[in-house]
Amino acid sequence: MILQHLNNLTTKRIILASSSPRRKEILQKIGLRFTVMPSEFEETLDPKSYSHPSQFVIATARGKAEEVAQRLSQPYPHIVIGADTCISLEGQVFGKPKDVDDATRMLSKFSSRSHEVLTGVCILVGHGSGDGWREISFCETTEVQFAELPPDVIKAYVDTGEPMDKAGGYGIQGLGGTLVEGIRGDYYNVMGFPLHRFCQQLAPVLAEERLVS
Amino acid sequence: MILQHLNNLTTKRIILASSSPRRKEILQKIGLRFTVMPSEFEETLDPKSYSHPSQFVIATARGKAEEVAQRLSQPYPHIVIGADTCISLEGQVFGKPKDVDDATRMLSKFSSRSHEVLTGVCILVGHGSGDGWREISFCETTEVQFAELPPDVIKAYVDTGEPMDKAGGYGIQGLGGTLVEGIRGDYYNVMGFPLHRFCQQLAPVLAEERLVS
Repeated sequence: MILQHLNNLTTKRIILASSSPRRKEILQKIGLRFTVMPSEFEETLDPKSYSHPSQFVIATARGKAEEVAQRLSQPYPHIVIGADTCISLEGQVFGKPKDVDDATRMLSKFSSRSHEVLTGVCILVGHGSGDGWREISFCETTEVQFAELPPDVIKAYVDTGEPMDKAGGYGIQGLGGTLVEGIRGDYYNVMGFPLHRFCQQLAPVLAEERLVS
Repeated sequence: MILQHLNNLTTKRIILASSSPRRKEILQKIGLRFTVMPSEFEETLDPKSYSHPSQFVIATARGKAEEVAQRLSQPYPHIVIGADTCISLEGQVFGKPKDVDDATRMLSKFSSRSHEVLTGVCILVGHGSGDGWREISFCETTEVQFAELPPDVIKAYVDTGEPMDKAGGYGIQGLGGTLVEGIRGDYYNVMGFPLHRFCQQLAPVLAEERLVS
């Protein structure tokens, strides 16, 4: 757990290599102080070239974190955080919808079924010198059960504009929350960042206090 | 589902008979317009006098909604919403902690285990005339799995002050979210209001359009 280390954590320079407002919100929730530096990593990896979607999201999260780490200058941060979220249903991987029709198609597929939300996280831990990064990476999976979504409900939801910048075309933290019967796992993972697992992985690093302030 | 009825819903006069900022936030999330009118119902019901905690929370939710309904004056609302949340673990019911020691005891009991969060909801549906209410009531249950909480983590969390006004002594939407490994069911139910079930129950009422504007 991380709560007992929060004072220690506030002395670290932390970069969030993501432009997602949800990830920013989740990390702010636990009192983390950090700078947002959106990654310019081109998200062109092909999920089909990985044996499992978890490897695909971890690879993309690593790509995002490493791209930002390469662009850093002094004062170098101690921690760089990259993340990527996708949805998996019967072997098919869904990212952000391309357009309204794509969002409608995705939501139709999710109706009355459960799918998996996977978030890959890559944490680069350094000594404040800008190199010699240690990598901690993992993928967290949450199962999401959707209600039956008749076409008029999908249309009303897509018309709100909420689906467009979100993996799978819905936001559980917004109006999309009304479509979800229940989840199994970490809610924050469905929002785009697995809060509990992140804290669990980072706590021993902080306890070591190897990071130089 | 309720999204296709939201325009209809915004013409209704709705009262939320609860002072909980979380319930207000959840209902605002779906674009509901309503007035908050905290219930003065004395929460003195004894959980032990009910055969199951679900009956206890529904009875308290009903008491809250009815107390507010009795105090109403013109213009009468169409819908009054009452809700009550408790936690159940091995037959024991937990509400809000009385003090710091009580919060510490509760959190210690939840460590490394799963417990149930139950929210009872009572919706009074009327015709805008202030009487002849129809009652819709239900209880939603969500399972919450806690991580192992060593005493220093519990102390750090209780010291933040967050536990004190929350059933079970934690807020999943705040720093308490770091303590939760995962849930099974509706996340919003753990926050204090079962969003999906509420929408599901209210949608047919709105579809009937029996409510006079």
